[in-house]
Amino acid sequence: MKLAHKKNEVRHIVSEWRARNLRVAFVPTMGALHEGHLALIRQARQHADHVVVSVFVNPTQFGPGEDYQQYPRSLSADVEQCRTEGVSLVFAPDYEEMYGRAGAPQYVSIRISKMHEHLCGATRKGHFEGVLQVVNKLFLIVRPDVAVFGQKDIQQWFIIRQMVEEFDHPMEVLMGPTRREEDGLAMSSRNVYLTEEERNKAPLLFEAIQRLSQRLTGVIRDSNNGDAGIPVDESLIKAEIERLRANGFKVDYLSLVSTPDLQPACVIHSGRLYVIAAAVWLGKTRLIDNVLLNTRKYPDHDA
Amino acid sequence: MKLAHKKNEVRHIVSEWRARNLRVAFVPTMGALHEGHLALIRQARQHADHVVVSVFVNPTQFGPGEDYQQYPRSLSADVEQCRTEGVSLVFAPDYEEMYGRAGAPQYVSIRISKMHEHLCGATRKGHFEGVLQVVNKLFLIVRPDVAVFGQKDIQQWFIIRQMVEEFDHPMEVLMGPTRREEDGLAMSSRNVYLTEEERNKAPLLFEAIQRLSQRLTGVIRDSNNGDAGIPVDESLIKAEIERLRANGFKVDYLSLVSTPDLQPACVIHSGRLYVIAAAVWLGKTRLIDNVLLNTRKYPDHDA
Repeated sequence: MKLAHKKNEVRHIVSEWRARNLRVAFVPTMGALHEGHLALIRQARQHADHVVVSVFVNPTQFGPGEDYQQYPRSLSADVEQCRTEGVSLVFAPDYEEMYGRAGAPQYVSIRISKMHEHLCGATRKGHFEGVLQVVNKLFLIVRPDVAVFGQKDIQQWFIIRQMVEEFDHPMEVLMGPTRREEDGLAMSSRNVYLTEEERNKAPLLFEAIQRLSQRLTGVIRDSNNGDAGIPVDESLIKAEIERLRANGFKVDYLSLVSTPDLQPACVIHSGRLYVIAAAVWLGKTRLIDNVLLNTRKYPDHDA
Repeated sequence: MKLAHKKNEVRHIVSEWRARNLRVAFVPTMGALHEGHLALIRQARQHADHVVVSVFVNPTQFGPGEDYQQYPRSLSADVEQCRTEGVSLVFAPDYEEMYGRAGAPQYVSIRISKMHEHLCGATRKGHFEGVLQVVNKLFLIVRPDVAVFGQKDIQQWFIIRQMVEEFDHPMEVLMGPTRREEDGLAMSSRNVYLTEEERNKAPLLFEAIQRLSQRLTGVIRDSNNGDAGIPVDESLIKAEIERLRANGFKVDYLSLVSTPDLQPACVIHSGRLYVIAAAVWLGKTRLIDNVLLNTRKYPDHDA
């Protein structure tokens, strides 16, 4: 395995692979790798001859009140985990390598419309534009055939996929399934911050999302006007929010949104893809989770 | 020579070249090729094994009052000229191939700050963002080692070069020198619209720019405080504007701007690169021209 700190090293290594017709998969990370990242790396290996992992804590996706300085850094441990997982190349640039000297002119930026208005984008202003800025650069440095991002950051996944399509990046964006603890809690580096009491309650988040999903799927299956669209029974969503609140969760959002625009859905059209996504606070810890909503009428035919 | 209408054909052809380690140069055009384009193509051939020319009249860079519908289309003549010039591949997509079905969601865009505020950007709102949208896509489809754009569209050149740097496109942007008629008028497909009287006056534009350049260069050479910056004598610029007006030109702008930010320069710093650029109307015809300003104190050392 190689460790590169410079863009040109990465370009050189990847172009040698390309010259031998080898496929390249890419897993961008901010380091502090945990089991969730490793699952993405394993998935990436299924789709390519070589896996590239980037480790870069990107300042442009942190807001003013957020924890850029405190974000955990553990490069040598990350590198070792990558080696164990069969990664071919770790790219760990510093700020200057990615963005040039401090104060270098930045006159060209990527803007998002619509897709960043709701869910996490509503409270994390500028976050997803910062994500696109660095991911677009990383894609142009690594030039992978395929990149893997986790489903857990579902808004990020759809926004990156949209950029790839609109910009004509010649690559596929895969979704890594959310890894869960035995009781259903989505894995996250933040779970360690939960008190024992909070940790015991935390699985209620996924339970709420799942129950809502099952109820909406049931309504769709029983409906006779799937093509015209089925109005969403808002009381189903409100009931889950109330239940979470009653259990001590502070609910940032629990929403049903259409894709790819990520707008709140009032009507469900059979055959289209929706997402039920939530962000909650348990004490001082923010948790997110989501499921994709199956809107096909004949579940037997689902993949 | 090959003619491709689909992105995937282009990708396939270019990746076969790459696999053989061949260099690719790219000249994006809106068709209606004239001697100016051919000079860019010849320059491109000096830098690569294969030259790709795209022909696409990009609607997103035309403003509401501009001539998108009327813009001249002459694909078969363009293709023949490319063949004669030794081009390897012409890419001529239609709207849907570039932007998808009409009404396909567009949620991710490229924004410019500062660099589009002055010069042509002041009157052509959204123009340069439309240019970046299509050029970024074309770069990602063709993936050239080098692209050539003409100096005549100097604001476009600097904005594209800025995007290439900030996005980390792995390529070089070359500047094709402005081709001129014997009397100095910059070549342009719009020159044919000039009446005989206007055509006779038209070289005064380049003369004004050149005279201004020589005067400013003289001031720099004679100055003893090049490092601290030499204030620009605005009256030199105003005198040229007045002279053009007296000859029947309507002057949109005649400006000295710094690079790469393209902001009006009040002070000249020795060793930095400036541009003297102008846009004028002669009757119903808009003409643009520019020169790069030599600010080094020792012209003997210039490239």
